[in-house]
Amino acid sequence: MLQFGVIGHKGRMGQALEAAIADAGHVLCVGVDAGGSIGPYASQCDVLVDFSAPDALAANLGAARVAGKPIVVGTTGLEEQHFVMLAEAARAVPVLQSGNFSLGVTLMAHLVREAAARLGPDWDIEVLEMHHRMKVDAPSGTAKLLGEAAAAGRGIVLGDNMESGRHGMTGARAEGAIGFATLRGGTVAGEHSVIFAGSEERLTLSHSAENRMIFARGAVRAGAWLTGQSAGRYTMNDVLGL
Amino acid sequence: MLQFGVIGHKGRMGQALEAAIADAGHVLCVGVDAGGSIGPYASQCDVLVDFSAPDALAANLGAARVAGKPIVVGTTGLEEQHFVMLAEAARAVPVLQSGNFSLGVTLMAHLVREAAARLGPDWDIEVLEMHHRMKVDAPSGTAKLLGEAAAAGRGIVLGDNMESGRHGMTGARAEGAIGFATLRGGTVAGEHSVIFAGSEERLTLSHSAENRMIFARGAVRAGAWLTGQSAGRYTMNDVLGL
Amino acid sequence: MLQFGVIGHKGRMGQALEAAIADAGHVLCVGVDAGGSIGPYASQCDVLVDFSAPDALAANLGAARVAGKPIVVGTTGLEEQHFVMLAEAARAVPVLQSGNFSLGVTLMAHLVREAAARLGPDWDIEVLEMHHRMKVDAPSGTAKLLGEAAAAGRGIVLGDNMESGRHGMTGARAEGAIGFATLRGGTVAGEHSVIFAGSEERLTLSHSAENRMIFARGAVRAGAWLTGQSAGRYTMNDVLGL
Amino acid sequence: MLQFGVIGHKGRMGQALEAAIADAGHVLCVGVDAGGSIGPYASQCDVLVDFSAPDALAANLGAARVAGKPIVVGTTGLEEQHFVMLAEAARAVPVLQSGNFSLGVTLMAHLVREAAARLGPDWDIEVLEMHHRMKVDAPSGTAKLLGEAAAAGRGIVLGDNMESGRHGMTGARAEGAIGFATLRGGTVAGEHSVIFAGSEERLTLSHSAENRMIFARGAVRAGAWLTGQSAGRYTMNDVLGL
Repeated sequence: MLQFGVIGHKGRMGQALEAAIADAGHVLCVGVDAGGSIGPYASQCDVLVDFSAPDALAANLGAARVAGKPIVVGTTGLEEQHFVMLAEAARAVPVLQSGNFSLGVTLMAHLVREAAARLGPDWDIEVLEMHHRMKVDAPSGTAKLLGEAAAAGRGIVLGDNMESGRHGMTGARAEGAIGFATLRGGTVAGEHSVIFAGSEERLTLSHSAENRMIFARGAVRAGAWLTGQSAGRYTMNDVLGL
Repeated sequence: MLQFGVIGHKGRMGQALEAAIADAGHVLCVGVDAGGSIGPYASQCDVLVDFSAPDALAANLGAARVAGKPIVVGTTGLEEQHFVMLAEAARAVPVLQSGNFSLGVTLMAHLVREAAARLGPDWDIEVLEMHHRMKVDAPSGTAKLLGEAAAAGRGIVLGDNMESGRHGMTGARAEGAIGFATLRGGTVAGEHSVIFAGSEERLTLSHSAENRMIFARGAVRAGAWLTGQSAGRYTMNDVLGL
Repeated sequence: MLQFGVIGHKGRMGQALEAAIADAGHVLCVGVDAGGSIGPYASQCDVLVDFSAPDALAANLGAARVAGKPIVVGTTGLEEQHFVMLAEAARAVPVLQSGNFSLGVTLMAHLVREAAARLGPDWDIEVLEMHHRMKVDAPSGTAKLLGEAAAAGRGIVLGDNMESGRHGMTGARAEGAIGFATLRGGTVAGEHSVIFAGSEERLTLSHSAENRMIFARGAVRAGAWLTGQSAGRYTMNDVLGL
Repeated sequence: MLQFGVIGHKGRMGQALEAAIADAGHVLCVGVDAGGSIGPYASQCDVLVDFSAPDALAANLGAARVAGKPIVVGTTGLEEQHFVMLAEAARAVPVLQSGNFSLGVTLMAHLVREAAARLGPDWDIEVLEMHHRMKVDAPSGTAKLLGEAAAAGRGIVLGDNMESGRHGMTGARAEGAIGFATLRGGTVAGEHSVIFAGSEERLTLSHSAENRMIFARGAVRAGAWLTGQSAGRYTMNDVLGL
């Protein structure tokens, strides 16, 4: 039975985390939100889980380091400076950041990497995602994670080849591009496809989540696993032994 | 046996049109391309079919009017000024412009309009399309046609509610928006979906074209039908009696 | 605030009904299961909801008639004799039987009927469904409901044209057949597609339910609506005013 | 430039093979059909390609052995005795039998095997396929090939776990089953999905062929490759170096 500290507690994922922590036989020792700080409580927790906002990341990682506690980061919309912070924090405590905590997506990313490595550059790669109407960023963290997997398989850098938000006179598709398209609507928990479009044939890998609980359960599993690790940067592949 | 004049003859659709004209027992009397003009030949044709570029539309409609011949327009990427030109030309000759000439898409647009009329504004509407890697504009003419059908069913104006090319910190989905997402890759002839995303359920209408011939056949059927009409603006609904 | 009597109370749908009844501000006055009988309690209820088994239908309809109460029937796997019973009961009390109580599927059935009516017999019709691994009958009641809608649109009888459970040397598809295919797995709440497959193009209508609650809510809505009706046979179209 | 002998020459695949042989710069030296025999011509060919019927397999393999020529077999609907024949013939000449000759499906089978190996038995496996209305057997050879890949990954025998043609009171899904569902309609060249349905999430791998030419090209590529091999049984994995 572990003590979990949750940052971003009142959000949709925070509510799912509370349920998943209890389901797994652990305890939510403290939940804080925008305006609050996990700092004063971090030493009482076994592990911190952050599903809040990019702006709060520095403070949350700082709290984990001061208290010497592992931290799971599921916040989306991270940019380059945030990844630098994650790497720094990982020198002091165990850190696991992921755009998606489900077994299905973690395996999908692995398969996408393999497919991208085996299919030549004449197979165009597209990433499609759909989420509920309240999601504020696009493409999703999971879509980027899948795009990164495709780029890694192909031996290219995603940032240099990303084609997202097509609209208007776009011209023909850039050679080697990895395209992204975003759908928003209803209460969709999360759907992702990676399409390999070749000459007269297509290979598609898709993942569909029925609800947010699978992500929460995965994050709790990751948090529990992290309590047994030394300082360093980890991924869901490590947790799941893929 | 009718004489067809084709503008945009060397493009992918032009080649498909040539085959479809022959399949239907008609004759391609003349085909012109960028740089050429249909003007000198229009009077020898029974009907003109334009799958070229927005910039050429004024000249092509002019040629149809001077020769007093009906014209089918399948060019994509049209903007407001082009629709004004089409309306003007339709006072003199029969004019049919469409983003899609297949029976399947024409019926789909009809069903989309009906679904949008019956589902309340708490059902979010999204339009998804995929085309081959050479397509230069986004979203496709067919996607816009389907978005127009949804807007008409809901009693709103598409232009005021279009949400296309999402990327970055978009904020939550705007209430009443009609979203568009664009995929490009491989040799895909054309796939379109309209998604109605409600609370915990989704209704989706999709169309898939196996190749370009179905569009070419529909355009030829429209052209033949148009030769029997008086001046005016027509749609594929008229041709197919939907 | 209405009193609901639920038959099939311990099943998955029964549990969802209990939640949906409370959500809508009504009361579950009694819930019975296999072995029990609603008879002794029916007079205390405003409306009965039956999601049990075909074998129990006669007794449940009888209880509704004796008590003079409306009844909603969501039991799947009904056969011809059950429909005769429903018609008889409807002479005495309001009766609403449906394979699906969601707004999305009800509208989908309407659109399928219309599409089938407008597309010629050279468009093959296929119905595909997927449900969780525990479902015991195939195809689902909703799949049959959609197949009936397609048959009605085409002016044929489903029973004479149903092609389900293909396996082995089937021979070519029978002309005019309505095909069914069944997928089972995981925890899928319910997904249905009707595919119109023409020459080189396809039109597909699909519905996806994220969970069972949308069916339960629809059944409760139907039950409440039924309390204001006179004896007769009703459908979800009546409830939703489609 | 190689000489190809094609058995099943007048069928849809035979026509596609003729085009693909020419496209690749080879020659169709002889094409035979039902009633004819490749025997008298086999010695003039560099390689035989058989897309005919299971009943003709023994004679075709015999002709290959007598002439000492490699043979590609794409015939579907093969049963256990046919696989015994293939193994026997492979002791004398190079033999490659496959349910599908596309790069996309070959890679997909590889990914399916890997996914099945990594996902526990609580992830249900389903195989879905759709083909044109003229196809006479179900499930398709490709669907079986994908089911075999899933079974291999899971370490079970497909024949003992196949659940195909569900209809009626099927009972709940058998534990460990690999399910098959078959759609037929229109002119669909071939679509296949393998669905891994877990608890509240699903991972799906899909392949879509725009036309038959990709299969024909793959078979020709396989035939050319086979001319350089010694006697033995080969797969598309060998040809494509996967």
